Amino acid sequence: MSARQFVNDPDEFVSQALQGLQLAHPHLVQVSADPALVLRTPKDGDQPKVALVSGGGSGHEPLHTGFVGLGMLDAAVPGAVFASPTAYQVRAGIKAADRGRGVLLIVKNYTGDVLNFSIAAELAAEEGIEVEIVLVDDDLATDGGDDGGPGRRGTAAVVAVEKICGAAAERGASLAELAELGRRVVAGSRTMALALQACTHPGRQRPSFDLADDEVEFGVGIHGEHGIGRRPFGPASELVPALAQPVVDALGLARGDSVIALVNGLGSTHALELSVVHQELSTFLDGIGVRVERALVGSYVTALDMRGCSITLVRCDATLLDLWNAPVRTPALAW
Amino acid sequence: MSARQFVNDPDEFVSQALQGLQLAHPHLVQVSADPALVLRTPKDGDQPKVALVSGGGSGHEPLHTGFVGLGMLDAAVPGAVFASPTAYQVRAGIKAADRGRGVLLIVKNYTGDVLNFSIAAELAAEEGIEVEIVLVDDDLATDGGDDGGPGRRGTAAVVAVEKICGAAAERGASLAELAELGRRVVAGSRTMALALQACTHPGRQRPSFDLADDEVEFGVGIHGEHGIGRRPFGPASELVPALAQPVVDALGLARGDSVIALVNGLGSTHALELSVVHQELSTFLDGIGVRVERALVGSYVTALDMRGCSITLVRCDATLLDLWNAPVRTPALAW
Repeated sequence: MSARQFVNDPDEFVSQALQGLQLAHPHLVQVSADPALVLRTPKDGDQPKVALVSGGGSGHEPLHTGFVGLGMLDAAVPGAVFASPTAYQVRAGIKAADRGRGVLLIVKNYTGDVLNFSIAAELAAEEGIEVEIVLVDDDLATDGGDDGGPGRRGTAAVVAVEKICGAAAERGASLAELAELGRRVVAGSRTMALALQACTHPGRQRPSFDLADDEVEFGVGIHGEHGIGRRPFGPASELVPALAQPVVDALGLARGDSVIALVNGLGSTHALELSVVHQELSTFLDGIGVRVERALVGSYVTALDMRGCSITLVRCDATLLDLWNAPVRTPALAW
Repeated sequence: MSARQFVNDPDEFVSQALQGLQLAHPHLVQVSADPALVLRTPKDGDQPKVALVSGGGSGHEPLHTGFVGLGMLDAAVPGAVFASPTAYQVRAGIKAADRGRGVLLIVKNYTGDVLNFSIAAELAAEEGIEVEIVLVDDDLATDGGDDGGPGRRGTAAVVAVEKICGAAAERGASLAELAELGRRVVAGSRTMALALQACTHPGRQRPSFDLADDEVEFGVGIHGEHGIGRRPFGPASELVPALAQPVVDALGLARGDSVIALVNGLGSTHALELSVVHQELSTFLDGIGVRVERALVGSYVTALDMRGCSITLVRCDATLLDLWNAPVRTPALAW
């Protein structure tokens, strides 16, 4: 068994993939090469709105480049595989997306991303663009409490933030309202992930770590790094509650609460498997009286070809549900 | 390295996944367990139309169950993994989907599927339901000419048939018109696939065949079967033209022709890789003067977790393009 990819020069992997995205979706997105940016294709009749910009390392597709379009992002700023975009690149994304009503930056909590998006926000502010940052930090695996460390990583909850804030922006919400809304989604979101097999970087043939046949890696992130511990492999009926329980505990969910559930494949997990995970998650949550109002089941935030999944729960209410139901038209979410 | 899945009892894999699909998309589909069927959830204001029914073995998701909804199928009939549904199951699907204007059966060319869908069509006809069958046979790897064998397998072109006929059905086309339209799409569609790694059946830990690190399997189907030959592994810039050239030749495409391109992941191929494949395919077709009018790039017709891709080209004209652009709302193609 090997783990090869469709790739030419690994150093050109992301830039060539961006060209491919542009070729596949010319009506939805416009890709610039230097600096690398994916921008929403303007449409006649577009109203001025607060612009949403996100980004980060590549390798997590369809995040973020696949979510540029109606109802989600105005620009995505892709770095190299698993590497933050530069501050100047983010600044270029802010400037290209801005329509005079301000820019919301949605940033996953990694040191490089936080640094570069923050510098870009300052640079843009100096040029008169109003910017707010929503920091997404949903991954329980790196919750160190008040240990002074970098804190929880940002993972799949970023999709919920992009979707809900994107819908509100289309409806004319102000920058301040969007920032508050995004922070509310983040505060109500937690995630836990596990891997059945690590991912393989472009051009390499070995995964980033090895697992025995009877082990799973619990608490993995989305960059091929080790998780927080190994557990025995088992049926989905055991693995899924083990993932979901800490999420429920961290959010303090109780009987009668409502959530949006994201069952996210990490790259090589088949749609049938994700449906099985969702069935088990639904059974588990039903058993504790937590209602799943909506679900998103698929591979939305990947770690290259990692085999595994994450479970994200988002506390929800009527406002968030209504925004969740709004239409979307982006490369990853349109015919 | 292992290849485990999120699964409980492998014999319950498909039925549990169908429950998960229902739980994730209650507004779009209704799943019945016995016989297993996925039906479009009726909406107020639905007009009577010709019903589209497809199906086949499971393990190819999102095909077909993920394509039930507005603009595509009215019912999908899923068999066990890589096994045809029964004739009685298909008949139940026909009866549940029929709205009095007839039923179009879209059938991939495999012996079991052809047999069972044909029997079901006869049974339904005896009950007064008008049925037409469109047989999809796009896979060049099994093109034996006039050798009297089973002929070309049906693979990714089935998505184009479901999409284009689905759009026409929404617009009120008759059963005869849809059958003719579907056959026209089939006649203009050819596919070739290759695997970098075979797939693994639920509950097993070894792939269905082994490949050396320096080999790819050319001409694979979507059931884990061997292809028609091994070739050296190479960069995407070599593999993609090798896939596309026989498709171009079989369709007799020449300078000035227009196509719809489907770049389809077979299960474990990352979105970035598929974008690279599409970029190479676009370059190749541009070089011979063939215009790509539209593209669908993603994992739509999978072979469980196979690592690989297929390239399908569909000859197109203004009628097909217009139908291609019509809206779709199904589990796999909606937020």
